[in-house]
Amino acid sequence: MKHTVKIAVDAMGGDYAPQAVIEGAALAVGELDCTVILVGDREVISPLLQKQSCPEERIIVKHASEVVRMDESPRKALNAKQDTSIRKIFELVKAGEADACMSAGNSGAAMLSGLHVLGTLPGVDRPCIGSILPTVSGRVVLLDAGANVDSKPHNLVQFAFMGHALARYTLGIDRPKIGLLSIGEEPGKGNEVVRSTYKILKKSDLNFHGNVEGGDIFADIVDVVVCDGFVGNVVLKTGEGVVQALGTRLKAEIKASLLGRFGYLFMRPALKRFKKRFDYAEYGGALLLGLDGIGVIAHGRSNPTAVKNAIRITYDYAKTRVAMRVKEEVESSAELRQSFGERVHQVIEHIKEKKLEMDLKDSVSADKGD
Amino acid sequence: MKHTVKIAVDAMGGDYAPQAVIEGAALAVGELDCTVILVGDREVISPLLQKQSCPEERIIVKHASEVVRMDESPRKALNAKQDTSIRKIFELVKAGEADACMSAGNSGAAMLSGLHVLGTLPGVDRPCIGSILPTVSGRVVLLDAGANVDSKPHNLVQFAFMGHALARYTLGIDRPKIGLLSIGEEPGKGNEVVRSTYKILKKSDLNFHGNVEGGDIFADIVDVVVCDGFVGNVVLKTGEGVVQALGTRLKAEIKASLLGRFGYLFMRPALKRFKKRFDYAEYGGALLLGLDGIGVIAHGRSNPTAVKNAIRITYDYAKTRVAMRVKEEVESSAELRQSFGERVHQVIEHIKEKKLEMDLKDSVSADKGD
Repeated sequence: MKHTVKIAVDAMGGDYAPQAVIEGAALAVGELDCTVILVGDREVISPLLQKQSCPEERIIVKHASEVVRMDESPRKALNAKQDTSIRKIFELVKAGEADACMSAGNSGAAMLSGLHVLGTLPGVDRPCIGSILPTVSGRVVLLDAGANVDSKPHNLVQFAFMGHALARYTLGIDRPKIGLLSIGEEPGKGNEVVRSTYKILKKSDLNFHGNVEGGDIFADIVDVVVCDGFVGNVVLKTGEGVVQALGTRLKAEIKASLLGRFGYLFMRPALKRFKKRFDYAEYGGALLLGLDGIGVIAHGRSNPTAVKNAIRITYDYAKTRVAMRVKEEVESSAELRQSFGERVHQVIEHIKEKKLEMDLKDSVSADKGD
Repeated sequence: MKHTVKIAVDAMGGDYAPQAVIEGAALAVGELDCTVILVGDREVISPLLQKQSCPEERIIVKHASEVVRMDESPRKALNAKQDTSIRKIFELVKAGEADACMSAGNSGAAMLSGLHVLGTLPGVDRPCIGSILPTVSGRVVLLDAGANVDSKPHNLVQFAFMGHALARYTLGIDRPKIGLLSIGEEPGKGNEVVRSTYKILKKSDLNFHGNVEGGDIFADIVDVVVCDGFVGNVVLKTGEGVVQALGTRLKAEIKASLLGRFGYLFMRPALKRFKKRFDYAEYGGALLLGLDGIGVIAHGRSNPTAVKNAIRITYDYAKTRVAMRVKEEVESSAELRQSFGERVHQVIEHIKEKKLEMDLKDSVSADKGD
């Protein structure tokens, strides 16, 4: 029997929630073969939803009475509030009522809820955020994009393995090139954690390129960039900030001259394509990697388009459950990997033996068919 | 007697050295009231210099027989080689034969040479790299831009004080706003070192804005952004990388359509102004802050324009020796600052009492007049 993907969406999460989330959900069900379960205050959601023109049966509302605000401490909020929308979306995944979930709300609260409700895959000490970013001519996986600060070398090594899996199945690259973010290409460059991580990754059977610098992230040199979550978050936001600053400045320069304004008339389509490519609203939506289930977080400033795209990404992840499988394989031998060095080698041998080439369709229908 | 500023320049440092350095030096003496001392292999420099059209007496060559290559380990190279150009420029400053020095070579070797030869200002445990970057409508001081990894809270606090001084005298802001780079605005956000640093800076009398995120760096929210050198270097290079990636992509989009190409004809001046603003060649040149003397490092990929601009920056720093004075004041009470908390307060009080408003001209002529 055909399985329609079900996605639980935190209707109350994000700077423009619930309005932008509801509009985004309506857009998503118009484009994708999925059902969206909007989780949040029914009293607020229902009237807004009625104004949307989309098939009624494709958007279901589930009530949750409380909300974690963007500026709240995730731990405190989740301890104090029992019935939050951000926790409930993970509970729906745990219960099998949804295949995956998505929130544009407090990302720390999303990660914490995911951890509490779904738990981690075997062998993962700390889940991380895997972002897929546009580059000059392709895409790159950046992880950790902000879940963990003060990561240890074994955390970064686990991120590398998860990044390998994510790049394989989202970018379709057989042996993704893994780069370790540092401040120089040479093995000795970087801080203590990075220098130790380099030595371990060098011994692994990952396709380890070595260190990469900030300037290499968007230059299609590697497929995966591994870093601590503090650094990854700064990279992500610096990148966004630069794009925004350049955009503002470019507009000002163009408007400052008559010729510029005239030329703009002709260049508008090119500039629009350009903007589309680097607009977070187009690619926003990062996977909570290493959870025992699929959760996606979207940018807090998500507008309806960004919400729709984040739901699309969640949908894709739900379809390719195989990504989870690979991770399960990688993670299943964590005890080994934790003691590093030669043992990393054994794990990879183990993984290679199992030859993880699975059929996408099989895995989608077999696992969750209804 | 009128004092002409003398700048020692490492002729052998940088990817395009010595050619680009010599051309840049010739451009610089054409624009600035300074003498450049080119340090390096006389046999190589002299014939190249003769091809430049600039007043002979304004560029002096000093011989140094050895070079630290860009890819060499700074420590090993400086131990093995006794007569390197990158060390000699600092020796000229130490001896009073130059007012300041500049290198586009191995930045680690420059910092190490500066440390060995000039030493640090009283109270500075670790010097740092202070970069001045273009923002949407102004400039921002970023530090540390790459000298120190694994900085401790007291290092970051010292960077903040040095950044305060640098912003005062280069950006001309009376009480520069200081931001601490983190991954969220709230005080509790960030890694361990950042969270501790926040608490100390909060107690200081600096104009401390609080945490800033990567996206805020270029948005004119603060005048100084304080971070560890690993993070600062990644930020700097990510920023450059994004600018480059966007440029490449923008060109491709424009060329892809006839209309785009037509429009470009009119927009070229606007795009050129835009490029100029964000081109590292225009602003390249970062101060080695906290050394007991003035040293500037330029981008390794510096072309003649970038070299010229780095020399201009060095010149400005040499003229405004007052920046050094402020730092000396700030740094002079380091023992106090090292034990943090309330004592930070005392130091600032001490500084305020001394009222550091000095006359620029006085300080330039009095200190080094010849």
